[in-house]
Amino acid sequence: MNVLIVHAHNEPRSFCAALCRLAEQTLREQGHAVKVSDLYGMNWNPVAGEADFLERRNPDYLVYALEQREAVTARTLAADIREELDKLLWADLVIFNFPVYWFSVPAILKGWFDRVLVSGICYGGKRFYDQGGLAGKRALLTLTLGGRDHMFGPGAIHGPLEDMLRPLLRGTLAYTGMTVLPPFVAWHVPYVSDEVRAGYLQAYQARLAGIEQDEALVFPRLDQFDARLYPLPAES
Amino acid sequence: MNVLIVHAHNEPRSFCAALCRLAEQTLREQGHAVKVSDLYGMNWNPVAGEADFLERRNPDYLVYALEQREAVTARTLAADIREELDKLLWADLVIFNFPVYWFSVPAILKGWFDRVLVSGICYGGKRFYDQGGLAGKRALLTLTLGGRDHMFGPGAIHGPLEDMLRPLLRGTLAYTGMTVLPPFVAWHVPYVSDEVRAGYLQAYQARLAGIEQDEALVFPRLDQFDARLYPLPAES
Repeated sequence: MNVLIVHAHNEPRSFCAALCRLAEQTLREQGHAVKVSDLYGMNWNPVAGEADFLERRNPDYLVYALEQREAVTARTLAADIREELDKLLWADLVIFNFPVYWFSVPAILKGWFDRVLVSGICYGGKRFYDQGGLAGKRALLTLTLGGRDHMFGPGAIHGPLEDMLRPLLRGTLAYTGMTVLPPFVAWHVPYVSDEVRAGYLQAYQARLAGIEQDEALVFPRLDQFDARLYPLPAES
Repeated sequence: MNVLIVHAHNEPRSFCAALCRLAEQTLREQGHAVKVSDLYGMNWNPVAGEADFLERRNPDYLVYALEQREAVTARTLAADIREELDKLLWADLVIFNFPVYWFSVPAILKGWFDRVLVSGICYGGKRFYDQGGLAGKRALLTLTLGGRDHMFGPGAIHGPLEDMLRPLLRGTLAYTGMTVLPPFVAWHVPYVSDEVRAGYLQAYQARLAGIEQDEALVFPRLDQFDARLYPLPAES
């Protein structure tokens, strides 16, 4: 497999960074090719704006997704975006490795989604969910959390983690057609002992060893909806 | 009321920007004091990093939330954060005005949450949900969407919009103690006629006129959970 790890932590010696390095090493040892985009290390610009296009279809009025669609064909996307897009298109598996900020990704990673998942390639028109432009690729969220696991789940104070991660799992990864694996979660990271952390690393290594056999999460398919995207009656 | 509008669109002449200006004008005419943070106009930096602290409690190892907690007390937060935090603390109502990117906020606004909602003031320890540091303030999401309204809801292709917005509504705004109003949504904006857009503006103005009477969304309260945050039996 070709594997891209997109890593977004502002402390190079963090446990989150250790998960990133472990994945890189483990997957290489399994014979996979691995590229890492260390967003803080790269000083990645997360702000979607007019400078993202070397030429503009409409220089007077910015419709970001429309300019993406033109620029990706004309090859006039800003170089930093093009580089990340090429890595993404090269990858069979993409791992997003990050600390949870506000039940979501840090802004630097949100801006990777905003700028790299370009309209016209990754989605567009009726090309989303199982018909999305990145169909065939697999995606994994690897995340570190301050909260404890009993604070998530049905009836728990924050509800199920998958519900909090819904715009990422369903609205971003599944939307672009990717096969989405269950997240790998390291709980309560700032407060646990070194033994617990070592256990997380071991569990992650084991998880990565079997990643090609992992069962994916299930999301909507376009054939469950009509041409105007109203739901069709469910099969009995 | 004191009202802060945090606006995040990269085209100053967008419909989203028109909603922002309309809110500013309408609320001023109602006698409220209004401040606007135009994040693109301000060239807001959304990346949470070491430069956010003029002094570091631990210069060798960055734990972002911990440094926030120290810096807000010692008044060593970076000036751009302090300025936004002061506006936030001044406000009785905060409106977040943005186009939906990946079923969430654009990165530039995500980074406002990451950097401005500082630990120690906005939340911390057991100070979250109804006990959050911003209790007493009201929050409204005003958003423009490419999708149509029938694509959201139970059984619809994207499910209920509130579910996609959960990390914002519940995980961010309600988490910090804010009273969260139902979002104002302008659907299918890039594709609708001028008449439909005019209708959205009219509906928004009417909504703002009654905003002080708006009924809030309901979220967990800490008294439903025990000291370790396990759920207590529900009242019968």
